[in-house]
Amino acid sequence: MARIAGIVENALETLLPPVDGAEARLVEAMRYATLGGGKRLRAFLVMETANLFSVSETCAARVAASVEMLHAYSLVHDDLPAMDDDDLRRGKPSTHKAFDEATAILAGDALQTRAFEVLAEHDTHSDPEARCELVAALGAASGARGMAGGQMIDMVTEGQVLDGPAVTRLQALKTGRLIQYSAEAGAILGRAPYRQRHQIVAFGRDLGAAFQIADDLLDVEGTAEETGKTMGKDAAAGKATMVSVLGPELARSHADMLARQAADHLEGFGERAALLRALAAFVVERRS
Amino acid sequence: MARIAGIVENALETLLPPVDGAEARLVEAMRYATLGGGKRLRAFLVMETANLFSVSETCAARVAASVEMLHAYSLVHDDLPAMDDDDLRRGKPSTHKAFDEATAILAGDALQTRAFEVLAEHDTHSDPEARCELVAALGAASGARGMAGGQMIDMVTEGQVLDGPAVTRLQALKTGRLIQYSAEAGAILGRAPYRQRHQIVAFGRDLGAAFQIADDLLDVEGTAEETGKTMGKDAAAGKATMVSVLGPELARSHADMLARQAADHLEGFGERAALLRALAAFVVERRS
Repeated sequence: MARIAGIVENALETLLPPVDGAEARLVEAMRYATLGGGKRLRAFLVMETANLFSVSETCAARVAASVEMLHAYSLVHDDLPAMDDDDLRRGKPSTHKAFDEATAILAGDALQTRAFEVLAEHDTHSDPEARCELVAALGAASGARGMAGGQMIDMVTEGQVLDGPAVTRLQALKTGRLIQYSAEAGAILGRAPYRQRHQIVAFGRDLGAAFQIADDLLDVEGTAEETGKTMGKDAAAGKATMVSVLGPELARSHADMLARQAADHLEGFGERAALLRALAAFVVERRS
Repeated sequence: MARIAGIVENALETLLPPVDGAEARLVEAMRYATLGGGKRLRAFLVMETANLFSVSETCAARVAASVEMLHAYSLVHDDLPAMDDDDLRRGKPSTHKAFDEATAILAGDALQTRAFEVLAEHDTHSDPEARCELVAALGAASGARGMAGGQMIDMVTEGQVLDGPAVTRLQALKTGRLIQYSAEAGAILGRAPYRQRHQIVAFGRDLGAAFQIADDLLDVEGTAEETGKTMGKDAAAGKATMVSVLGPELARSHADMLARQAADHLEGFGERAALLRALAAFVVERRS
C-alpha cells in the first residue's frame, strides 16, 4: 500500500500544481486537503483492480488521484461547522480551521470539479468511451443517489433509531458507493468483460460495507492518537451505525463475514488478486 | 428566450426527478435551487450556438440543463453565510434560508455532480469524444482556473483597490469562463471546425465580459424589485468592479463596445446567428 500511496501522491502533485495569482490560496487549500494524508484505500482499489487487467500504471494513477480528490472534497465539506463541525482530520486541523470556511467550501467545490476534469482528459484512457463511463459512474456513485444522498440521510435521521436495513442503505450510499466505484473504475479502465466487471463491483460493494462497519467499531473502540480524528462522534451525535444496531460483537462478526464474501467474489482471478484479498482482511483488522 | 427557457425547464425536470427515501430533502433542495428561475442566459447560449450547427434540440437541452445546474450550484454556495451571506435569490429565499445550511452545501455539491454526470451519459451525444470534451471544458471553466478561482480572488481582494486588468481577470474567471463555455458547448456538440469553434469562443468571451459589466451597473442602478436580488452589495462589500474602476458612464460604453465586438465575431454565420447577435445587444440593455 505504501508503494501505491507514493505513486498516487505523485499523481496528485502533478494534477494539482501550485499556482500564482490571487487564487493561489484556493489551490493551497485544495493541496492541503488532498496531499500527504489518509490510507489511500480508494486509490489502492483503483490501482489494484486496474492491475488485474494489465492497465498502464500511469492511467490508473490518474483515476486513483481523481477518486482521492473526490473523497477529499467530501471530507472537507463534511467537516464544515454546518455539517459535522469537526476540527481534526488525519491528525491535522480540518481545512476550514487551517484556512477559513469560505475557502474550505470553495476548495471542496474545486476538488470535485478537478476530479471529473481529470477523468475526461485524454491521458486517462485512449478510448473516450471508457473516460465517459468513468465520469458517469463517478457521478452516480457520489451524487444524490450516492455519497451526497447518504450524507443527507445521515443528517435527516440523526437522533432517530434506525433498523439494520436502513443503516445498511445509509452506509451503502454514504461510503459504500464510492468504494465500490473505486474497484469498478479499474474494471472500466481495463475494458473488463461483463462477468468480470460484475465480480469486481460485487467485491467493491462488500468490501465497502465491511470497511464502514470496521470504521464504526473504531469510532467506539479506537483512540484519536490511532486514527487521527475525533472519536466517539457517532454516539455523541446520536448517529445510527451497525454497532448501535447490532452491538460491537455481532457487528464485528458481520464485518468479518462481509470481508470473506468480498474476497470470494474474486474467484478466477488467481494470484493477481492476492493483494485485493489481503485488503479485504486488512480493512476489518486495522486499528486506524 | 421564453421558448428555450421552457425546453430547458423540461429537461431539468427530467434530469432532476423527485425521489422517495430519506434523501428526498436533498433532491427537493436541488430542484428548488434550479427549477423555475433565472434568465437561463447560459442555457440559451448552449441552445443557440448548437443550433448554428444543426445539433438535435434534445441533446443540446441536456447540455443546457447541465450548465444551468452548474450555475445553480455556484449560486447556492455563493449565497451561504460563510460566502456572500445573501438571503435573497431570484426573488425567493436563498436555498440555505428555505432549507438549512447543511442541506444547501450538499445540494450545491450534488448539483455539480449531476452536471458532469449528465454530460458523460450516452444520450448527450453519440460521439463519446464530444462528451469527454464537454466534461473537460466544463471542468476547466468552473474549477480553480475558472469560476471557483474567480470566487477566491473576489474574496481575497475584498476591500482592496484593483486596477482595470485585475478586475477584468477576476470577472473573466468568476463569470466569464462559464458563459464562454456555454457558447463553446454548442460548438463542441456540433463538432464545429477549428475556425468556427474559435469564433464562438471569442463571441462567448466578449459576451461574458459585457454581461458582467452590465450586471455590475445593475447592482449600482437597479432595484431589488427589478432584479430579484439584494442590490448595492458590491459597493457595501468593498468589491472592485469595472463600475468602481471606470465609473458608470465609461463602464457602460465599455460594455457596449464589448457587446458589439461579440456580435462581430459571428461573421459568416448569417441569419442563423441573428438571435445570438440580438442577445449581445440584450445583455447590455437589460434591466434585470
